[in-house]
Amino acid sequence: MTPETTLVSVTVLQEFCEAALTRCGLNERDAKITADALVTTDTIGVFTHGTKSLRGYVRRLRAGGLKADAVPQVTAQGPAWALVDGRSAIAMVTSVFAMNTAIRKARTAGVAYVGVRNSCHFGAAGYYATLAARAGMIGMAMANDTPSMAVPGARGGVLGTNPFAYTVPAGEEDPIVLDIASAAVAGGKVRIAQALNQKVPDNWLVDAEGVPTTDPMVYPQAGALLPFAGHKGYGIALMIETLSAVLAGGAIMGTVGSWMDSDPSQPTGHGAAFLAIDVSAMAPLDVFKIRVDAVIREIRAAPKAKGADRIYVPGEMEWQKRRDALERGIALPDDVMASLRGLAHDLTIETPWLSA
Amino acid sequence: MTPETTLVSVTVLQEFCEAALTRCGLNERDAKITADALVTTDTIGVFTHGTKSLRGYVRRLRAGGLKADAVPQVTAQGPAWALVDGRSAIAMVTSVFAMNTAIRKARTAGVAYVGVRNSCHFGAAGYYATLAARAGMIGMAMANDTPSMAVPGARGGVLGTNPFAYTVPAGEEDPIVLDIASAAVAGGKVRIAQALNQKVPDNWLVDAEGVPTTDPMVYPQAGALLPFAGHKGYGIALMIETLSAVLAGGAIMGTVGSWMDSDPSQPTGHGAAFLAIDVSAMAPLDVFKIRVDAVIREIRAAPKAKGADRIYVPGEMEWQKRRDALERGIALPDDVMASLRGLAHDLTIETPWLSA
Repeated sequence: MTPETTLVSVTVLQEFCEAALTRCGLNERDAKITADALVTTDTIGVFTHGTKSLRGYVRRLRAGGLKADAVPQVTAQGPAWALVDGRSAIAMVTSVFAMNTAIRKARTAGVAYVGVRNSCHFGAAGYYATLAARAGMIGMAMANDTPSMAVPGARGGVLGTNPFAYTVPAGEEDPIVLDIASAAVAGGKVRIAQALNQKVPDNWLVDAEGVPTTDPMVYPQAGALLPFAGHKGYGIALMIETLSAVLAGGAIMGTVGSWMDSDPSQPTGHGAAFLAIDVSAMAPLDVFKIRVDAVIREIRAAPKAKGADRIYVPGEMEWQKRRDALERGIALPDDVMASLRGLAHDLTIETPWLSA
Repeated sequence: MTPETTLVSVTVLQEFCEAALTRCGLNERDAKITADALVTTDTIGVFTHGTKSLRGYVRRLRAGGLKADAVPQVTAQGPAWALVDGRSAIAMVTSVFAMNTAIRKARTAGVAYVGVRNSCHFGAAGYYATLAARAGMIGMAMANDTPSMAVPGARGGVLGTNPFAYTVPAGEEDPIVLDIASAAVAGGKVRIAQALNQKVPDNWLVDAEGVPTTDPMVYPQAGALLPFAGHKGYGIALMIETLSAVLAGGAIMGTVGSWMDSDPSQPTGHGAAFLAIDVSAMAPLDVFKIRVDAVIREIRAAPKAKGADRIYVPGEMEWQKRRDALERGIALPDDVMASLRGLAHDLTIETPWLSA
């Protein structure tokens, strides 16, 4: 624990988020769902996508761009798919509803896709994918976002840093969880470099002319993020755009609003997509889990590179952080604490634990 | 056209491949399917995965590791999924069968997954994904492979360079097609650098100790390929391994044989996975296609980076190459011609067009 962090118990943080959300008009169930998504994301150390964002969501709830009482709805469906209209409900509620719909459909069809429109920034994709793993399924979650990422040959934002996550249930091991942006890095990491006045690697950003730069200050106004691995990240972002928006019938590319910077009284129109694959339809779940454990252990037991102590499986470090957080509290960084304090102030909620 | 290339008509190349395959015992239909996959791959300029590989497949067909008369079989199925046992048929036949099974199931369920075991190296993943686009569907294809790729912290091959492809049907535009390896580059590109005695970028390979190197000669014996974008490519490769092998019930990681270097009398046990999403179940196909065209044109019309003439959509360059090849013939590189000559010699097929 460094001087910049404060240990906060998961329960206290959860209760605070629920209180903030019910004060904005969410019912208790929706407040609980939303708070759990954000607090869980903090427990795994992904502070850029956790409770730090709640102040911004609340701003939209109060301004009307997000509707506190909206109920997401299935607008069309088939044996192995559904389309969901989020009706500008807070995206955690819509996304959990959509993933649970995918899980329910996969239970009978074996596989299911759910496309979502009229949602908003949903935070960490991995949270929703993990709901499937908890149900013994392979899960995927993805979403589009307002353009902030250049593509090869372009200057300026063309696609969002469209996130993608998948998870695989394991047996004795923790589920495999990968949660990545299509960009070389999440915009939040560039903002950290800005705050710390540091240069960034030259494959993170292009400047106003579309030329790679190490100056984080060009983002987001003049420059743009770069996709990971050039045409590969670009192509994956476009796949996500297709499944989350083009197929789901929602806002595409430039018509998606920024959840942080656009008029908070207007919906952002984010889309999303969720997939569930019911392992038990195809193989005995316990046999599958033994196989996944074996894969995890085979990877972990591989010969180490010079200087490497161990090999991590995707999600492994995050599960460890989560266990620590549940046991000892979450070491919230200063910027998260500041955002929570601001939120408490905005809503005039009494929070002795937030006092500096 | 450089002096190292020869223009060969698509028809002539197709007929030669069919002749080679029927001589090995494949029936005419399977020979046609296999030849089409390989020749089509040459037409889009992906010569590392086209007819150049046929000599190696034929070697396995003659040695018994691939069975010329095997018929792939659905071993289990549900409304939106199937598992296929390739029974060591040549992988193009099994993969086309599996993708067509996914398309057929998606026609009723909306979405379908097909997992394949007991297959072999299937060449270009994009070929199979494109079958879905032709049927008005979004398609995905992926496969595992013998370990030749290190993961962060490891030395030596841990996972295959597991390929992934997707395709999206468009209207007036060509379908979007992305076909990528989980590695920073395909092993074939390292072999080209070896042949040309060139250094490679330092994010392609690690040496015997797991340390990044620019020396292509370490591959494949001592060193290993690196995943694209570090943990992102690693995580994607593991997802592909899960869907292609762990769920499909086939050979996993180290138990997959090398289609080039392992005993050709033994099966390699490759797995694969195919997904189809029937657009028309969820939206009018023509409306969807108009949206896809709009996305393609919006990307293409984005402001250009300094020095860039145009922005390409995934697959666009390949479609143009294919049109050129169909019109003028395929400009086969020298190494492909040499492999085809070797194949003609192995099978004592008369090929005046192959004479040097």
